[in-house]
Amino acid sequence: MTDRKRVVIVGGGFGGLALARGLRSANVDVTLVDRENHHLFQPLLYQVATAGLQPGAIAVPIRGVLSKQKNARVLLDEAVGVDLERKVLHLARGKELPFDYLVAATGARTNYFGHDDWAKYAHGLKTVRDAIRIRERVLLAFEEAEMETDPARRKMLLTFVVIGGGPTGVEMAGAIRELGKSVLAGDYRNIKDEDIRVLLVEMAPRVLMPFDPELSEKARLALAELGVEVRLGEPVSEVAEERVRIGEEWIDASIIVWASGVKPTSFAAKLGAPLDRAGRVIVGQDCSIPGHPDVFVLGDAASFTPAGAERPLPGLAPVAMQQGRYLARIIANDGKGLPRPPFVYRDKGAMATIGRRRAVAATKRLKLSGFLAWIAWGLVHVAYLIGFHNRLLVLFEWTWSLVTAKRGARLITANIHFRDTPGRRPELPPLIVERHGRRTRMPGERRSLDS
Amino acid sequence: MTDRKRVVIVGGGFGGLALARGLRSANVDVTLVDRENHHLFQPLLYQVATAGLQPGAIAVPIRGVLSKQKNARVLLDEAVGVDLERKVLHLARGKELPFDYLVAATGARTNYFGHDDWAKYAHGLKTVRDAIRIRERVLLAFEEAEMETDPARRKMLLTFVVIGGGPTGVEMAGAIRELGKSVLAGDYRNIKDEDIRVLLVEMAPRVLMPFDPELSEKARLALAELGVEVRLGEPVSEVAEERVRIGEEWIDASIIVWASGVKPTSFAAKLGAPLDRAGRVIVGQDCSIPGHPDVFVLGDAASFTPAGAERPLPGLAPVAMQQGRYLARIIANDGKGLPRPPFVYRDKGAMATIGRRRAVAATKRLKLSGFLAWIAWGLVHVAYLIGFHNRLLVLFEWTWSLVTAKRGARLITANIHFRDTPGRRPELPPLIVERHGRRTRMPGERRSLDS
Repeated sequence: MTDRKRVVIVGGGFGGLALARGLRSANVDVTLVDRENHHLFQPLLYQVATAGLQPGAIAVPIRGVLSKQKNARVLLDEAVGVDLERKVLHLARGKELPFDYLVAATGARTNYFGHDDWAKYAHGLKTVRDAIRIRERVLLAFEEAEMETDPARRKMLLTFVVIGGGPTGVEMAGAIRELGKSVLAGDYRNIKDEDIRVLLVEMAPRVLMPFDPELSEKARLALAELGVEVRLGEPVSEVAEERVRIGEEWIDASIIVWASGVKPTSFAAKLGAPLDRAGRVIVGQDCSIPGHPDVFVLGDAASFTPAGAERPLPGLAPVAMQQGRYLARIIANDGKGLPRPPFVYRDKGAMATIGRRRAVAATKRLKLSGFLAWIAWGLVHVAYLIGFHNRLLVLFEWTWSLVTAKRGARLITANIHFRDTPGRRPELPPLIVERHGRRTRMPGERRSLDS
Repeated sequence: MTDRKRVVIVGGGFGGLALARGLRSANVDVTLVDRENHHLFQPLLYQVATAGLQPGAIAVPIRGVLSKQKNARVLLDEAVGVDLERKVLHLARGKELPFDYLVAATGARTNYFGHDDWAKYAHGLKTVRDAIRIRERVLLAFEEAEMETDPARRKMLLTFVVIGGGPTGVEMAGAIRELGKSVLAGDYRNIKDEDIRVLLVEMAPRVLMPFDPELSEKARLALAELGVEVRLGEPVSEVAEERVRIGEEWIDASIIVWASGVKPTSFAAKLGAPLDRAGRVIVGQDCSIPGHPDVFVLGDAASFTPAGAERPLPGLAPVAMQQGRYLARIIANDGKGLPRPPFVYRDKGAMATIGRRRAVAATKRLKLSGFLAWIAWGLVHVAYLIGFHNRLLVLFEWTWSLVTAKRGARLITANIHFRDTPGRRPELPPLIVERHGRRTRMPGERRSLDS
């Protein structure tokens, strides 16, 4: 059986994994390459960043997911280039990987829109590392505020700014506010609920732009009620160490989260196909790139514009998953000589949660908000988690947190350095987080330490 | 009420936390200082290192444990010195902390017995960081072996050496063997059970020296049956990069775990009191240091020899916990002018598990081994975990792993670099783990990268 086609998938996110699993009965050999060992359920990553979930509850080893699929193998490696003529993928570690079909499901990374230097001060939220880093810095900010005597610095330490009013930004801002409100404040003797300030900054005139304006307004009201300051229609004009400029106003903040945009990872551009303005690969109606019917791009890395539509599909998990399943059918059918119908996206709606017990959700026919929307949000998210283990774990943590108002993952596992540095705070040297030997700057650490 | 005595506890381990909680009704003000934000249930740390448990299942924020205890506060800070005359503790971040009673419950760290340079190659297991580091390196070794074509290097990658035949070493060796046996091998297409080699090296003539010889032999047999090579009576004479010399024989190994000994953390010695040969502070029958009846040392940092006994008590969690509860009574009674009876240790026995479903346990009257001992081991460990949340979480993970033979925490969250370095392996460059920007050497990485 040497006629088995070799399908190489780059990326084990929603799209790549849906494709690999969709090919389980196909007469092909599947190789999935990912530079992480785990598939990550990104929609709940903000809960890891706010100590609500452990990383292991929303991440599963890709190898484990595909371990029983006989025609699939998994490589922990990084795709660094491709030779479309010879049909080989170049890997950082392995040899060249020949393919008959290549699918780039490489997803997106944080986009600072030309201000990559802001990455030092404003944390992206795309990987488990990002989430743990934010979690530890938020917890350390509280620790530092608990002992701080200088009112201005104390205010800064307890100010958190989330940039970007999409679902991630809205959920993140709500979760930080709630972490301060009900969860942490009780643990700290000197921190009161009103000391904590959370800002959500969005350039557009409303949050959750893809949603119906009515739901955007409901979300804004729910955020305001929770105590989040929502700043709409104001761009972030500068980000610096422990401060951010919103329009003309500088705001001092200990943690700045950047949830403002994404761009494709670098691999997609290496295919040599035309890109849209957002850097995504423009694909045809079958998700293939021009001139190469055996090379596909899906999900966040692709710019797919449905026939007759004006704009490409948004970068959402359901798009990637549906494209993954679609490509599985296409590739299986190719072997049978069947034609390729165009990909059709079925929009099942969108949802976002605001703190505990509230959410907004919208499908084409139905708009929901409040507690009912929150229940729906929870059920949908648990259902889409991969593996029974993680579903049980997330349900357990949510139930626990609902019953006790506590969160189970409030750990700082990094090495904290208690450094007595000369600086703006003579009395209280900053806490510095170290990971395996290397310091990264913490709120309050002087830049001179960063060398 | 200015006559409330100030009790300062350094360290939130078993002893420090037992003391703080024991003082909840006493007419004192308790300050607990720890440089980590969490209490760690160290007896199960090896399960984090072998992907069986998430860190959050065995660590709890100290602040959360004491949040409802009105007379206690928690400081995230490092005790760097003490002035016994002025009765103040020096902290790295905060001001001086005055005390009426000072208790050093500072525990122990890995002891390389004068070979601190071995720490680079042989991983200790005392912190969550240590455990995550071992977990990621073990998982990466499997990833690398899966693709390795050079037989010698492949053999090295799948060889794991645990140094030290105490409970930690025995449990660690058993857990690594089992991880390879039933859990991981199925996920890797090219790794078979017999490819994996786990060695347990102990200088003494038997494992589990504190136990009865009969149980030591049972443990050795159970380890052998599991497939662990137990090397007794042979000292480790050298440790280098990816290899270790046992007696005269050099063994190539990807992961070397150092479970051979501990010594007190540096704070204990700063009290200026006499130390025993192991570096522990010699304390009197009330756990106080000579000449300072208000300054105590407990647990692993203390050398407490019961009246009439020849040797000091071992460094075990029950000793620390009992001393913590004892000191709570002593300090409360001091206020009432009551005398101090000497501390009496009640030996409740010892236990160790070997892989899944087997353990050895011994009390003064009873010796247990096999499945029954394993059930007892599990119940005791769950019972001593702090917090209902973590008990449920550990029970869930254990049940899951018993039913499915899978482990739920097989994540590599560090940043993996796929680096094409010139070296002994022209075809397959090594995986390198990075944490927030700084590389630490991985199995296979050449030393030249370590600068």
